[in-house]
Amino acid sequence: MAHLPEDFGGIVPPLSTPFTPSFEVDVASLERLIEFQLAAGVHGIFVLGSTGEAAFLTDQQRATVIEVAVRTVGGQVPVLAGIFDMTTARVVEHAQTARRLGADALVLTAPFYTRISQSEISEHFWLVHVAVDLPLFAYDIPSAVSTKIARETMLRLAEDGVIRGIKDSSGDEANFRALLLALGGRADFSLFTGSELLVDAALLFGANGCVPGLGNIDPAGYMRLYQAAQAGDWQLARREQERLFRLFDIVSVGLPRMGIGSSAMGGFKTALKLRGVIATNITGRPSIQLNAEEVERVRQALITANLL
Amino acid sequence: MAHLPEDFGGIVPPLSTPFTPSFEVDVASLERLIEFQLAAGVHGIFVLGSTGEAAFLTDQQRATVIEVAVRTVGGQVPVLAGIFDMTTARVVEHAQTARRLGADALVLTAPFYTRISQSEISEHFWLVHVAVDLPLFAYDIPSAVSTKIARETMLRLAEDGVIRGIKDSSGDEANFRALLLALGGRADFSLFTGSELLVDAALLFGANGCVPGLGNIDPAGYMRLYQAAQAGDWQLARREQERLFRLFDIVSVGLPRMGIGSSAMGGFKTALKLRGVIATNITGRPSIQLNAEEVERVRQALITANLL
Amino acid sequence: MAHLPEDFGGIVPPLSTPFTPSFEVDVASLERLIEFQLAAGVHGIFVLGSTGEAAFLTDQQRATVIEVAVRTVGGQVPVLAGIFDMTTARVVEHAQTARRLGADALVLTAPFYTRISQSEISEHFWLVHVAVDLPLFAYDIPSAVSTKIARETMLRLAEDGVIRGIKDSSGDEANFRALLLALGGRADFSLFTGSELLVDAALLFGANGCVPGLGNIDPAGYMRLYQAAQAGDWQLARREQERLFRLFDIVSVGLPRMGIGSSAMGGFKTALKLRGVIATNITGRPSIQLNAEEVERVRQALITANLL
Amino acid sequence: MAHLPEDFGGIVPPLSTPFTPSFEVDVASLERLIEFQLAAGVHGIFVLGSTGEAAFLTDQQRATVIEVAVRTVGGQVPVLAGIFDMTTARVVEHAQTARRLGADALVLTAPFYTRISQSEISEHFWLVHVAVDLPLFAYDIPSAVSTKIARETMLRLAEDGVIRGIKDSSGDEANFRALLLALGGRADFSLFTGSELLVDAALLFGANGCVPGLGNIDPAGYMRLYQAAQAGDWQLARREQERLFRLFDIVSVGLPRMGIGSSAMGGFKTALKLRGVIATNITGRPSIQLNAEEVERVRQALITANLL
Repeated sequence: MAHLPEDFGGIVPPLSTPFTPSFEVDVASLERLIEFQLAAGVHGIFVLGSTGEAAFLTDQQRATVIEVAVRTVGGQVPVLAGIFDMTTARVVEHAQTARRLGADALVLTAPFYTRISQSEISEHFWLVHVAVDLPLFAYDIPSAVSTKIARETMLRLAEDGVIRGIKDSSGDEANFRALLLALGGRADFSLFTGSELLVDAALLFGANGCVPGLGNIDPAGYMRLYQAAQAGDWQLARREQERLFRLFDIVSVGLPRMGIGSSAMGGFKTALKLRGVIATNITGRPSIQLNAEEVERVRQALITANLL
Repeated sequence: MAHLPEDFGGIVPPLSTPFTPSFEVDVASLERLIEFQLAAGVHGIFVLGSTGEAAFLTDQQRATVIEVAVRTVGGQVPVLAGIFDMTTARVVEHAQTARRLGADALVLTAPFYTRISQSEISEHFWLVHVAVDLPLFAYDIPSAVSTKIARETMLRLAEDGVIRGIKDSSGDEANFRALLLALGGRADFSLFTGSELLVDAALLFGANGCVPGLGNIDPAGYMRLYQAAQAGDWQLARREQERLFRLFDIVSVGLPRMGIGSSAMGGFKTALKLRGVIATNITGRPSIQLNAEEVERVRQALITANLL
Repeated sequence: MAHLPEDFGGIVPPLSTPFTPSFEVDVASLERLIEFQLAAGVHGIFVLGSTGEAAFLTDQQRATVIEVAVRTVGGQVPVLAGIFDMTTARVVEHAQTARRLGADALVLTAPFYTRISQSEISEHFWLVHVAVDLPLFAYDIPSAVSTKIARETMLRLAEDGVIRGIKDSSGDEANFRALLLALGGRADFSLFTGSELLVDAALLFGANGCVPGLGNIDPAGYMRLYQAAQAGDWQLARREQERLFRLFDIVSVGLPRMGIGSSAMGGFKTALKLRGVIATNITGRPSIQLNAEEVERVRQALITANLL
Repeated sequence: MAHLPEDFGGIVPPLSTPFTPSFEVDVASLERLIEFQLAAGVHGIFVLGSTGEAAFLTDQQRATVIEVAVRTVGGQVPVLAGIFDMTTARVVEHAQTARRLGADALVLTAPFYTRISQSEISEHFWLVHVAVDLPLFAYDIPSAVSTKIARETMLRLAEDGVIRGIKDSSGDEANFRALLLALGGRADFSLFTGSELLVDAALLFGANGCVPGLGNIDPAGYMRLYQAAQAGDWQLARREQERLFRLFDIVSVGLPRMGIGSSAMGGFKTALKLRGVIATNITGRPSIQLNAEEVERVRQALITANLL
């Protein structure tokens, strides 16, 4: 177990969850993926996020992922775990499991399925905070949960010490910047952007780091981008980001044959397989799988990005 | 276990899940609620729906609800069980549990949290159909899951025998009617509306029945409405519907202090408590609870509707 | 000029605006369309609605349409005119023109393009009411203007005598029914549904009438539906509605080659041309025009509906 | 008339339209506002944009604004004019008027009110391009017109020479960056961001300039931001942007008493009045007007931003 450093920041990829052909967690592949990330020097790993297909895993499979991650990381960097579910009682169960298995911090969204008010979102975070003694990151992702965590809600949760950081995947960069202006000066609070195509901008604004799905495939690229920004070399940061931006096209390789979710997960997993990190590019059911032509387009994109 | 009658239809209320003060399932209250429904002559019961706060229950609590329902109903009418979760693997687990515990049919939505295509929605229903040998009802509720099950998807699933019926809570009455025009003639397929304020209309169009949340409180009212429609007495059906329409105002008793979800569930549970059916009006966390003034407004509404 | 009868109701089709090949108003065709409607016995006509492609007409062309309508109708039934524009000053100009040209009542939406509050919607209706001495109908069509006129706003405008009726094209039948329950008893207030596929239901609920785009093509069908409902013969009303429901498929004849707007307008105009009422099926720019195969499908639909 | 420079870029504020107490264009105030902008050294001015309340002006008033702008600017910088309306015929009329009155370039949105396809959006731009011999800027603002101009549509219109630039107010910075990556290298094409809170980021990405509503009040601030970015001093650019970011709070001064539109326009106009540039802070009908307390909060914000 690695306590979060007070100034926790940097590149924290949301790891894909590799599958076996029978849709079980491919433990050996997951271990290789984690080693691949650690070798690149990432500042933490985030398992069971949206990119990790948490929505597609049974509770047992989720537990396996955390176990493998905690064991493989071995305290070198913090392990963050997603505890996504509809409402409080279910989320608390996931939180307690993740804590027992050794996660260092937890990431949770607003409740979903049910239509919820901001005061109830706040209550949800409070109840999880009280129930489990681990740092919480609020994950704002209205595209998945249909509700935005309002700026005022975020700020109050941060002030009250209920959350220790934010992962912003809302796509609303102006609001993220407003959060940074209000909270960015706090030494013990970490704001991560999930906008993996605008990381140079987010770092210019003062973000502590990024949680890039594309970082699964090219953690070294995101590390270079981060280090350039740290060094104030914004043109270098921009060039690295632009290379990664173009590579990101692989997320739409399966459209419109399938949803954007399975296309993106399929694109990431295919790239990881082609780079020799994981064994299959299978995505969780009921996702449609990429076909040979789509796989070939991912291969070409990797070659263009100097990753193959 | 009660096999579904071929011409399954009528009033099938989606039962509330009563809670104890410690947020556990209140078994005695649930038993009383079921007896109350059976006494009114309902044609089936549906547990673990949106009104049943399935989103707020742990897996263990969901199992308790099914057990109590199957035992209390004792085969008098079919017991339908919701198996709501994000994607296939998780839903199949719920389906297998529900089957083992004796549910007669299963109700499932499109996948959620992830952004999904129509072909993947179709695949989802197919995989659940193959995994568990029980009749499936497709539950169209875009307000909860963000995705509409398209008309073409529904029709193909019906034609292929993957689903045995539909519960339409989409609010898109024209599309529901299109489904009725296409499928309403089939003897072995049941179309239920979840639009509890427009039941007379749905029955006029040819719907087989209704799944009214408000039926928790006044199953006898919905039975009279159904019987009037069966008898072709549309003015009587309309009058009954209008009385119930006005009563439905209790769903907004908590607005805007809380979300519409907790306001509605709180309104229903308060009415059930005031009518002496269940012991508390507690709703699932993180819902805000109704206050004394709001409870009083529910009481007045019940008096106006001749239910107290 | 025909004053609105106090109990104004019935079938009031929103007339298509026929075009010449150079995209001008085809006056002779418009006259024939109006005669065709009057011959069927409609209770009023509504020009410059969404179906009338008001959004596609210059101010001059709009004036031509009103002039032709007022002259051709000759006071036999009321002529309602749409005065759609973004905000008050522009709408008032349209209102004054329509009044000068002899319209009997005006139909207006919530402001659009700008993001507006309910109190500003209310102010908008008040300002138009004060500026022009004609009965106003509030047209609720969030699919076009992005804003719903809230129930409370509607009820207050009705109570205050600012509006004299409602055209509901919101697709939210439960809310329309709530308006009917609150206002339906008033002798001098008229509630029209724009949900042309659910007219039997709306009349069962107590609506005063319908504004059916499909009524352009088959006003006699809607008249039979209305008369059956008036006579309490709901099964006959339903059968007529179901025939019209199936005919309505022509609105999607151009999908997905074009938008639903141009597909629907193209379908209506093609049917009117095939029935010999208007000279071309041209729709307003930048709409894509139907091709020969799509025209053929409209022809087949007309044959199936016994209209050719 | 000032021909657009090939490398047109920089700060091009979308000018407010000052009103007299009787809701007419306040010509003297508009002249002062333009002089104020020119004195700050802006690279162009944009009249009749969303901030210019084009939606609230009659055609006559719109003409007045262009006349005043063209006369006052006197060819010192380009004058861009908005030609917002629902569809092609109406937009072409505005375009022809603007050309006749001396505008240097035109800014237009996707069609609105009607539901339109991408191919029809493309057709719309083509038809306006053919009808009027002036450079066109495509204005992507789905919050106003409900439709996004898709990336592919934009790229094809740019390639075909139909549009000469883009104003992106979509809030989708990743998509804007994709447009920049595809088009940013072209010397004769200009990409402007409307995201006035993220200008440093947009310039880092390679945007040619910005169209900041807030630039009405503090054009000198945006000029400093632009010049810092041109000089590669990103920390200075950021600090200037952060000061302007905080000042931007004045857009919500009227919430929730009114809509965000009238609150923002009221905030801008109040600031302009307090700075002595325009005579009243009146916004177009049916907007609610700011009250004394709200005006006072704008004054405090100006003091904090060192503008009073």
